[in-house]
Amino acid sequence: MIKLDLSNTINPIPFKSYAEEVKKIHKMINEKTGLGNDFLGWTTWPKDYDKEEFARIKEAAKNIRKNYDVLVVAGIGGSYLGARAAIEALKGLYGDDKLEIIFFGNTLSPTYIKQVLTYLENKKFAINVISKSGTTTETSVAFRLLKELLIKKVGKEAASKAIFATTDKARGALKKEADEEGYETFVIPDDIGGRYSVITAVGLLPIACAGCDIDQLMKGCRDAMNDLNNEDIFTNPAYQYAATRDYFYNNNKQVEMFVTYEPQYTQIGEWLKQLFGESEGKDGKGLLPDSVTFTTDLHSLGQFIQEGSHVLFETVVKVDSPLLDLTVPHDEDNLDGLNYLEGKKLSEVNEQAFLGTLKAHVDGGVPNIVLHVEKLDEYNLGYLFYFFMRSCAMSAYLLKINPFNQPGVEIYKKNMFHLLGKPGY
Amino acid sequence: MIKLDLSNTINPIPFKSYAEEVKKIHKMINEKTGLGNDFLGWTTWPKDYDKEEFARIKEAAKNIRKNYDVLVVAGIGGSYLGARAAIEALKGLYGDDKLEIIFFGNTLSPTYIKQVLTYLENKKFAINVISKSGTTTETSVAFRLLKELLIKKVGKEAASKAIFATTDKARGALKKEADEEGYETFVIPDDIGGRYSVITAVGLLPIACAGCDIDQLMKGCRDAMNDLNNEDIFTNPAYQYAATRDYFYNNNKQVEMFVTYEPQYTQIGEWLKQLFGESEGKDGKGLLPDSVTFTTDLHSLGQFIQEGSHVLFETVVKVDSPLLDLTVPHDEDNLDGLNYLEGKKLSEVNEQAFLGTLKAHVDGGVPNIVLHVEKLDEYNLGYLFYFFMRSCAMSAYLLKINPFNQPGVEIYKKNMFHLLGKPGY
Repeated sequence: MIKLDLSNTINPIPFKSYAEEVKKIHKMINEKTGLGNDFLGWTTWPKDYDKEEFARIKEAAKNIRKNYDVLVVAGIGGSYLGARAAIEALKGLYGDDKLEIIFFGNTLSPTYIKQVLTYLENKKFAINVISKSGTTTETSVAFRLLKELLIKKVGKEAASKAIFATTDKARGALKKEADEEGYETFVIPDDIGGRYSVITAVGLLPIACAGCDIDQLMKGCRDAMNDLNNEDIFTNPAYQYAATRDYFYNNNKQVEMFVTYEPQYTQIGEWLKQLFGESEGKDGKGLLPDSVTFTTDLHSLGQFIQEGSHVLFETVVKVDSPLLDLTVPHDEDNLDGLNYLEGKKLSEVNEQAFLGTLKAHVDGGVPNIVLHVEKLDEYNLGYLFYFFMRSCAMSAYLLKINPFNQPGVEIYKKNMFHLLGKPGY
Repeated sequence: MIKLDLSNTINPIPFKSYAEEVKKIHKMINEKTGLGNDFLGWTTWPKDYDKEEFARIKEAAKNIRKNYDVLVVAGIGGSYLGARAAIEALKGLYGDDKLEIIFFGNTLSPTYIKQVLTYLENKKFAINVISKSGTTTETSVAFRLLKELLIKKVGKEAASKAIFATTDKARGALKKEADEEGYETFVIPDDIGGRYSVITAVGLLPIACAGCDIDQLMKGCRDAMNDLNNEDIFTNPAYQYAATRDYFYNNNKQVEMFVTYEPQYTQIGEWLKQLFGESEGKDGKGLLPDSVTFTTDLHSLGQFIQEGSHVLFETVVKVDSPLLDLTVPHDEDNLDGLNYLEGKKLSEVNEQAFLGTLKAHVDGGVPNIVLHVEKLDEYNLGYLFYFFMRSCAMSAYLLKINPFNQPGVEIYKKNMFHLLGKPGY
C-alpha cells in the first residue's frame, strides 16, 4: 500500500556502501544501545500500547462527540502537529463533521487567543490539554484562559468533566491539577518524545474525536513495525529512504522539500518538518526540511525549484486515490478551452499534474524521491507515520546524531524567562 | 512606522561596496531600461492607478458585503496570495466578520473542491474570479464548477450579477465571457505581473470585501513609493535590505527564513516566498525563501535553526502592537508556575519571546534582519508591500536576474497538457 519509488533520484543511490552501517544501526535501535536510547519506546509501541487506556480514549471521544460542539486541543509542537496532520488528511479541510476541532495553546499571539476565546463564548466546548510538565508557557497561558472561560460558562463541576488532560503518568503540574480537579487523564509515555508521540494518547484522543478509526491507525502502525523491522537495506524501504536522504546531504543538497498534492496534506509536511528538523538539526548538521503543496505552490515556489539554486531535492508523498472525486463538466461555449478535460475525473487531472511536474523537475536537475500511498485512510496513515519515524531514527544515526533530544529549543526559552523575570532565571 | 534594524546581522554589511551599483540599478528601474522593463507598472501605480475603477471596487465590495454570506475568490499564485495575506493580517484568523471569504481555484484537489462546493450549497455566495487569460487550469476548472452550482441555485441572471471578473482589460477568454454574460470586470494591468499585483484590483477587491480600508492601504503604498524613491543606499532601507540579502547570498547562505510572531501573519510569509522565489529563482541562482511562525514553530524548526546546518539567515517582520490584546489571569493554586506573568499583557510576553529568540539565534550564529512595523494596519501593510516589491526588484537586479518573468513555471504545465491530451501539446 506504500511504495517507495527511487527511479527519479537522477543519481543511483549506493545502497551497498550503506549496507553494513545500516545493519549496525538497526541492531542499535532494536537493542536500545545508541544515543538517546531512553526514548525508543515508540519502536514497539504499536504492540505494547496500553489497551485499557486505548479503550478509554475511544470512550472519551464518543462522549466528546456526543456532548460538545467544539474540542479545543491545547498543545504545542509534538503535542498538536501529528493530530492536526492526521485529522486534516483524513477528513479534509471543509468536512461537515458536527464536532469542530480548534488547535490552541500553540502561540503567544494575543489576537489569536482573544479571537478564539470570543468565538468560544457561545459554543459548548471541551478541552484536551496536552503537556508533559504542565508548565509549557504557550499551552499553560492558553489553558488558564480557557479554563477561566469554561468555568464562567458552566461552573466548576461541569468544567472538570469537560477537561481531558494528556500528561505525565505520575508527576508534574498538570497531573497534579488533574488529580485534584478530577479531570480524566491520559499518559504521555516517559520513553516517547513529542515528535514521535502521535501514535500515543497525544495524537489518538484528538484523532478519535474527529471521528477517525484509531484501531485501523494502530493496525497500520503495527504492520509497519513488523514490515520494517528488517536490517537489510536492499529490502527495507524505510532504510532506503534514510540512506537516500543521507546520500543527498553528503552530496551538496542543503534542503529536503516535502511535497504533497492536496491542501489537506499540507500539515503532514509540518509534522515531517518537526520530525526531521528537530531530530537531525544538531551539531551544525542536517538537511533543512521544507514543504510545499502542489499544484498550488507551483505558482509560487515552482520557478525556484525548476530553475533556481540547486540546493534541494524533493520527497513527494503521493496519495494515489483521493478521499472524494468529481468530474470536469461540459461548457457549451468552451471559452476557457477546457472541454478537452470534459468528463475526466479531477483526480486524473491532478495525477497528470504530478507526472508532469515530476518530469519537469527531474529534467531541471532536481532529484525526486516518491512515496506512493494507495489511499490515505487511517490504516495507511498509521503505516506512514511509523515509516517516517523509523526512517528518521536511521537517518539521524547515520549522521551520528542523537535523534531524540532537542537541546537547542531550551535556549530561547531561557532568554525569554530571564527577560520576563521568571523566578530562577 | 517601519524601521529596518540591521544590528543583528553578525557581520556588518559593506554598503559602501554596493553604493554605485545600487545607484545604477535605481536609475534603471525608474527609467525602465533593465530586463523585464515591460513589467514595471507597479513602481508608480500608487499614484497612477485608475481612480474610477478604485471607486467601483469600493462599490462592488459594499454590494458584496451587503448581499452575500460568502465571497469565493478563484485565483492561483499572485491572484490570491496577496489578498489572503492582507485579509488574515488585518482581520485575524477567527474574526467575526459576517462575510466569509474562501480561496478557491488554487488547487486541483478533488477533495478540497468537492467539499467547498458542498459547503456552498446552502450559502448565498458571490464569486471573484481572477485570471489574466481566463485559461489557467486550476482557476478555470474551479470556476466552471462554481458557476454551474451558482446558476443551479439562483438562475443565470442572478448568477451574472454575483460574478466579478478581474482580468485583462480587452482580451482573453474571461474578458470575453464577462462581456457576453454581463459580469462586472476589473483590470489586471498589462505592465504588472501576478506577484506584484496585490495593489491592483487583483488584491484590492477581496481586501475591500473583507471590510478593510483600501484608501489607507494605497496611501501607505504611495508614501512608500515616495520615501523609497531614493538612490542612496545609506538612507534607503529597501535597498539596504536588498543589499543585505545579496551579501548573505554571496557569503554562503542558501536560505532566507521569513519569520513572523502571530499566526495571522503566516500568509505574509507565503506572499514573500512567491515574491522573492519567483523573482530570483532563475539561472541556477537565488536564495530559497522559507517561512516560519513563531513561537509556534520554535517547537518544530527551532532546534534546526538554533543548532543545525548553517544554511540560513532570518528576516523577521516584527509587528510591535497587536490587533487585540489581553492579560494573563491570576490562578490561586499556581501549579503551572505562571503567576509571575499575572497581569502582564500577552503582547509583552510575545515581545520577550521575540527578544529572547533573536538573542538565542544570533548567539547560535544565525544572522537576523529585523523589520519593525509599529502596527499592521492597512496603511502600514500597504507600505510594507511596496517596501518588499522595491527591495525585490533591486535584489534581483543585483543578481543580474530579470525580476519579472517566470519561464520555469511553464515547464510542468507543458508536460501536464501533453499528458492530458490538450490540443496543440
